[in-house]
Amino acid sequence: MDFRSWMSAVQARTESALQRLLPAATAAPSRLHAAMRYSALGGGKRVRPLLCHAAGAVFGADAERLDIPACAVELIHVYSLVHDDLPCMDDDVLRRGKPTCHVEYDEATALLVGDALQALAFQVLAEHGGSAAMLATLAQAAGSRGMAGGQAIDLAAVGKALTLAELEFMHIHKTGALIRAAVALGAQTGGADGESQRRLGQFAARAGLLFQVVDDILDAEASTATLGKTAGKDAAQNKPTYVSLLGIGRAKEMAAELRTEAKSALADFGARAERLAQLTDYITERSF
Amino acid sequence: MDFRSWMSAVQARTESALQRLLPAATAAPSRLHAAMRYSALGGGKRVRPLLCHAAGAVFGADAERLDIPACAVELIHVYSLVHDDLPCMDDDVLRRGKPTCHVEYDEATALLVGDALQALAFQVLAEHGGSAAMLATLAQAAGSRGMAGGQAIDLAAVGKALTLAELEFMHIHKTGALIRAAVALGAQTGGADGESQRRLGQFAARAGLLFQVVDDILDAEASTATLGKTAGKDAAQNKPTYVSLLGIGRAKEMAAELRTEAKSALADFGARAERLAQLTDYITERSF
Repeated sequence: MDFRSWMSAVQARTESALQRLLPAATAAPSRLHAAMRYSALGGGKRVRPLLCHAAGAVFGADAERLDIPACAVELIHVYSLVHDDLPCMDDDVLRRGKPTCHVEYDEATALLVGDALQALAFQVLAEHGGSAAMLATLAQAAGSRGMAGGQAIDLAAVGKALTLAELEFMHIHKTGALIRAAVALGAQTGGADGESQRRLGQFAARAGLLFQVVDDILDAEASTATLGKTAGKDAAQNKPTYVSLLGIGRAKEMAAELRTEAKSALADFGARAERLAQLTDYITERSF
Repeated sequence: MDFRSWMSAVQARTESALQRLLPAATAAPSRLHAAMRYSALGGGKRVRPLLCHAAGAVFGADAERLDIPACAVELIHVYSLVHDDLPCMDDDVLRRGKPTCHVEYDEATALLVGDALQALAFQVLAEHGGSAAMLATLAQAAGSRGMAGGQAIDLAAVGKALTLAELEFMHIHKTGALIRAAVALGAQTGGADGESQRRLGQFAARAGLLFQVVDDILDAEASTATLGKTAGKDAAQNKPTYVSLLGIGRAKEMAAELRTEAKSALADFGARAERLAQLTDYITERSF
């Protein structure tokens, strides 16, 4: 299967699995369930599920088994977007080409949607064969020393002049933690040994930063219509980005370097890591 | 050990375990970690940890092992209080005798505190011997078909005339789900069989409603100083309560009936359920 077909297939099966795992909009409380489905379904590139499936493929894990950790990670990601868009955070009105959850519903509902999606992520993993170690991986990535901590570092950074090292520290938490978890959960599903996990961790660390550098480039260069979310937001909110720190040219060079480093970390896996390598190229080329 | 001494001992060991399980306020991001500790430590009656320890004691579980599920449930409870107090929800300024988290810190930090405390609850359980079944119990109780769903039902009920059955449906989710989880996790830690779990579930369902009826009586009768949170809030917000539906006299009768039913469900356990029976009395007598 060529890469584009594989990607479409994983995106489709992720959508289908989420459809099944999310409570029906007819089940009480129906407004909450409708809002959860509104936020989680029908959009997004599903980068984290793609990484989870690609990492599982290295160890020959079945796609059927990978759907669960892939959806668990995506549910955590979606909850973080819903909360991040709230007025007390980024106060954004557009996400994945649609009004944000608190605009379409209301703030209190959006708060509960995020809360319930986070619980659902752990429930899905716990009810469908996830081990305690996998649940710990996901919880660490979501928590105060992972993604939620990254959001807090981001809040504290608004309007400040960060060094490149401080910006990297923020992103290692804010987006990096969950991307590393997506890869780790795929590998855990495939029964990867400790050394393989360690090498994939190196890949995921570089891929996570790459993803953020590309996101910053896109935020600076692309239109709101193309992105499906408000473009130019970082500059407007005076948030430090790789582009604001390095300029667009140096940011693109950095993306190219991170791509090389990420793919180097895959070398020992040979052809088994083909999907991870292709995903790395895909993530990079979004910005060129 | 008499009941009061046992209760103090469980409260003290819960505080001590939470102290240990929460990230240090000196660890980055320090403001988030300080706010998490501010919200979770030094207050609260620890009713859910008490129920967890009392249920575990029925099956002879060690207090050391019960600290983990007790703290996991309490972390979920504390996160729900922090989010519930936010301006877009109940907009409250006082909790456990202190300014609420968003007043002491800020709204964005309080949002992240709740998010991170929820993740920490699952992390604590996953990292310290909790089984996938226990993690599923906690996640179901926290999610859209449990506590978060109950909040959504509560939101939809403001200003409406509920029937007693509708009010009960709300509380079975909003406070009942986590109280049932506290009991179930204690029993699971003690290796309870299915039949024992079922009977304890019947106890927990009555105890959960009892707790809510008593809470409504206290909200109507006690002072803000006594409660450590804003009194008379339900009436001021035009929220349906057992007192507004039944009147104070009938609400107290209902509490007495629920106490009897809860304790009947414990009959087969004999003296092993002593702490659960004492807790039932304690919860009831708070209101008389």
